Amino acid sequence: LAEKQNGPRDIFKLSCDWLSVQEVVDAVSSPSCGAISVFIGTTREDEADGKKVVGLEYEAYEPMAQSEFTKLCADIRARWPSVTHICVYHRLGWVKVGEASVVMAISSPHRHDSQQAIQNCISQLKANVPIWKKEVYNTQEASWKENAECSWSIQKKTAADTPPEENPNEKT
Amino acid sequence: LAEKQNGPRDIFKLSCDWLSVQEVVDAVSSPSCGAISVFIGTTREDEADGKKVVGLEYEAYEPMAQSEFTKLCADIRARWPSVTHICVYHRLGWVKVGEASVVMAISSPHRHDSQQAIQNCISQLKANVPIWKKEVYNTQEASWKENAECSWSIQKKTAADTPPEENPNEKT
Repeated sequence: LAEKQNGPRDIFKLSCDWLSVQEVVDAVSSPSCGAISVFIGTTREDEADGKKVVGLEYEAYEPMAQSEFTKLCADIRARWPSVTHICVYHRLGWVKVGEASVVMAISSPHRHDSQQAIQNCISQLKANVPIWKKEVYNTQEASWKENAECSWSIQKKTAADTPPEENPNEKT
Repeated sequence: LAEKQNGPRDIFKLSCDWLSVQEVVDAVSSPSCGAISVFIGTTREDEADGKKVVGLEYEAYEPMAQSEFTKLCADIRARWPSVTHICVYHRLGWVKVGEASVVMAISSPHRHDSQQAIQNCISQLKANVPIWKKEVYNTQEASWKENAECSWSIQKKTAADTPPEENPNEKT
């Protein structure tokens, strides 16, 4: 019973607000764990065809994102049974250059398991969880980006190169 | 010159105070980086011969710790040239169960380099940087612990099993 109360936690949150690294770390902390591995993905200053990226706009299909996260956690726990808690926070909406779009943390008694698991977690998230990003440039143009690792990228190809009238100008 | 001003940062701090994960993450943030990998080592609730660990007491040989950190950073940068900033904060003194003894973060443009580098960083820190820990038990006993990965562990063997009068009872 005690094991059930203090059992493993799988926490997933999609949020339009700034992500707190400390909050994600606290969510996976446990007295039985000596290791917490964290990965933070941030919006990178980038250039494409002479255009500068000023930010990213994220959208998700929320019910499927939650169910894919549940599968991802089951897969991680099967591969690294010592993994204790898993927490992933992902931003939605506008994320300007330098800000975090994803913060994830995994705890385990010893470090190797949390380190392996965190690498797998970000790879699986990018490959399977339906979250899309649109690059917004300093030219007011924008373009939907698909993930190289994304398993449903063929479907997404038709959504690429969004017309300029869909730019979220009000947010730049 | 701009490169020098905004050039790579190698930050190392030994501190008796609670470690802020956000502070370490902020220290490695850069608009050119899309990835920050973090590792947090915490004091784990553990048992040895029926005694419960209530906390750890850390000591460092500070000048050598700083110079070993400098070497460690040079080594990481040689192996993963895209690594941008490296920051390691380590606690000294009393660290109770559940608290972080080390928080480290590494940034890079893409995630694979920061992920590989952070694993190497904690391994090198444990192997080469002169920081020692004493396990303090609920029985008021204590024992210096050497690191399995530690290159100077032969010298340290003679310091093990500290007599009970050296327990930091006032801190439990």
